[in-house]
Amino acid sequence: MLPTASTRQALVERRAALARLLGKTPALLASGKPRARNYADQQFPFRATSHFLYLFALPHPDALAHWDGEGWTLYLPAPGEDDALWEGAVPGFFDISQAVGVPVRERTALSTQLPASTTTLPAPDMETNAELASLLGRDVRYGRLAAQDEKLADALISLRLHHDAQAAHELRLAAQVTRAAHEAGLRATRPGVKEAVVRAAMEAAILAHDVAPAYNPIVTVHGEVLHNHHYGHTLQAGDLLLADVGAESPGGWAGDVTRTWPVSGRYSPTQRALYDVVLRAQKATIAAVRPGVRYRDLHLLAHRELTAGLVELGILEGEVEALVGDGVSALLFPHGVGHLIGLDVHDMEDLGDRAGYAPGRTRPQGLGHRSLRMDRDLAPGMCVTIEPGLYLVPAILESAALTRRAGSRLNRKRLAEFADVRGIRIEDDVLVTEGGHEVLTAAIPKEADAIEKAMA
Amino acid sequence: MLPTASTRQALVERRAALARLLGKTPALLASGKPRARNYADQQFPFRATSHFLYLFALPHPDALAHWDGEGWTLYLPAPGEDDALWEGAVPGFFDISQAVGVPVRERTALSTQLPASTTTLPAPDMETNAELASLLGRDVRYGRLAAQDEKLADALISLRLHHDAQAAHELRLAAQVTRAAHEAGLRATRPGVKEAVVRAAMEAAILAHDVAPAYNPIVTVHGEVLHNHHYGHTLQAGDLLLADVGAESPGGWAGDVTRTWPVSGRYSPTQRALYDVVLRAQKATIAAVRPGVRYRDLHLLAHRELTAGLVELGILEGEVEALVGDGVSALLFPHGVGHLIGLDVHDMEDLGDRAGYAPGRTRPQGLGHRSLRMDRDLAPGMCVTIEPGLYLVPAILESAALTRRAGSRLNRKRLAEFADVRGIRIEDDVLVTEGGHEVLTAAIPKEADAIEKAMA
Repeated sequence: MLPTASTRQALVERRAALARLLGKTPALLASGKPRARNYADQQFPFRATSHFLYLFALPHPDALAHWDGEGWTLYLPAPGEDDALWEGAVPGFFDISQAVGVPVRERTALSTQLPASTTTLPAPDMETNAELASLLGRDVRYGRLAAQDEKLADALISLRLHHDAQAAHELRLAAQVTRAAHEAGLRATRPGVKEAVVRAAMEAAILAHDVAPAYNPIVTVHGEVLHNHHYGHTLQAGDLLLADVGAESPGGWAGDVTRTWPVSGRYSPTQRALYDVVLRAQKATIAAVRPGVRYRDLHLLAHRELTAGLVELGILEGEVEALVGDGVSALLFPHGVGHLIGLDVHDMEDLGDRAGYAPGRTRPQGLGHRSLRMDRDLAPGMCVTIEPGLYLVPAILESAALTRRAGSRLNRKRLAEFADVRGIRIEDDVLVTEGGHEVLTAAIPKEADAIEKAMA
Repeated sequence: MLPTASTRQALVERRAALARLLGKTPALLASGKPRARNYADQQFPFRATSHFLYLFALPHPDALAHWDGEGWTLYLPAPGEDDALWEGAVPGFFDISQAVGVPVRERTALSTQLPASTTTLPAPDMETNAELASLLGRDVRYGRLAAQDEKLADALISLRLHHDAQAAHELRLAAQVTRAAHEAGLRATRPGVKEAVVRAAMEAAILAHDVAPAYNPIVTVHGEVLHNHHYGHTLQAGDLLLADVGAESPGGWAGDVTRTWPVSGRYSPTQRALYDVVLRAQKATIAAVRPGVRYRDLHLLAHRELTAGLVELGILEGEVEALVGDGVSALLFPHGVGHLIGLDVHDMEDLGDRAGYAPGRTRPQGLGHRSLRMDRDLAPGMCVTIEPGLYLVPAILESAALTRRAGSRLNRKRLAEFADVRGIRIEDDVLVTEGGHEVLTAAIPKEADAIEKAMA
């Protein structure tokens, strides 16, 4: 569980880069505390905070990393008296120090009252923040970055936005296991089984690699319910199954991939027609990924491509630009085209939009567009998802208030002919390179023919 | 996701019984809040608090149940504006009220300042407790039951100690899925794969039933590490694999079963000899389960049976009673024989030893015995695990301080002949009945021959 030599080298470089940005400003970062499930000792699997993993790659609970303006020191709980009995032999402080590249000391060696100038970042749980607050003598709350902590946040954002070679390596590992999960899902799909059976097969492929899912899987025949974490429907031959499933790498980096495949193994003509509209939009958007491109423009490109396809099919009528600009396309594609991905599936979302949005940029307005999680100019090392989708959401299509904008441009009669589609999304993880981009998840079947072949 | 009619009837009866115990004393119970993983919106799967599930069987986050001395009211968050888009259609308050059998109102309808006499039970997370504290105008901390809350705690303990028919039904469902997991584990075991592969197969069997593991699985060739949640070892033909894996029922009730099987499919003679010693002790202990028996006596019975077997094998020498009484057997069996099981795998451990230990009884002293989580006189409806084990723990056997008690009675030369055993545990879930007991997990292969046959 200790970092490898190549990881150690990356950690050293990341901390050096952070030191240049922080200068003499002290900082304290927590790995966080385990989260109780039923009671204190029955816990969800521990997952350290991403900022801590970025700098120390150590999945230890209750660790504190302290930058005193000169160097980092890692403070860890002292082993308990019975630890060897219950937990077995664990690496000692010396081994950890060697692997991570910083001095390691007992938690009790850290001052209980750090200088008021010390910066920190809130964790997403009150237990950790209560401890940080006690050490710093000030309020530490998730979602409320103190003014003095903005320097630390911005320094980490500036580093984590641009993945180094070690990070890219971990993202590729995540993509590999994510591929295994999707291939297992394709094999496990058949009419008559529950969504839970496919979900289980996909998650098992991840667990068998001794890593965790990067987020709670979505595996559903009701893809039009965007945050669907139920797995109780029985698959019917005419259904499309939407699977949004990604693995974490051993170091905690995320994969995030969506595919939508036919339960029967064959897309119906109407399913394939809409699938190919989404696929064309997704491929066109990926093709545009390169340094200097503004992410919001990719979002709008996906809308235009999707809309062009829907106009060709006769589902939408009118000018593409107007359909997008008036928010008509958002009735069928009501979420953003994607987000940053890294140590978090929505990378650094613990800092709100501070990471996703460049300074001075804010969320656009309107259905769908306001759900866009990112608006930066792409640069080498950034990794983003590209995930357009098409959904027939009753809550939208039955809303007179929402659909008024379409006027007669939404051909409901034509749309009704595609009633065997409820939701389609196609998502890949795309790393921005000097020369353009690398699709990390390219090996996962995506063309309709390739999916049908994989299911045959 | 709503309770069935038969569950509703049980809920009505449980709440009526609780009302008789509470009388006019008001009470407030929280279902709890989702626990963040990486950031607030990326969460571990929500699991409501067990006390709340016991009375309402509703897996909803952010619910508050209020007993005002006359009746219960359930307060739920109002659906969000975009919920139908992101979460799909959800049951309305009327449907929930019908299914649960109490009035349901919006959270905003609950007074923000409840009477000081209102009792509550702390949740295992600070977010929930902060909200309870705000509503009650007093401190609410996990692990520190306020004097005024003892009445509510004891009332719920008195009910939850004795499982009703609906609870027993759920425990049987948990046992069924737990069986599927263990059978999948037996099939997936083979030399050359990692522990993670077997763990994945077992967890997939649980997920495929659309339920969750009741706790983090232990699947390890190092069974001597009692709390082992790593899955990185490669299985070798000569290893025993210890699998402590249980499923939750749809209503949240736990299964908890351990089996120990040979990676090769065949126990070696030494492995089988020790396995049969543990098995004999486990079966003798289960045979003694009936109303009126003191649980601590079952713990000691397991020690005596295990010790008798070890004496027969020549690993321990001397009188059985003295070997147990002097703590020699605890060197090889250093944990308790089991615990309460119900809506929690260690049922009601959120209340410390208050549920496990009858009033006036406290934990025994000494290695192993101090880890006993229960000491009550058994009564019909109680459900307990019976899980003796035998472990060669280096941290114990290499400790002069710990092994001094054995004197010459631990035959290390003979023990060394059993070096292909590191840890064996055999665990079943046993429901106390009027006439004796029912082993809920009896269908899971346990005899050495049955395990070898299942692996063939």
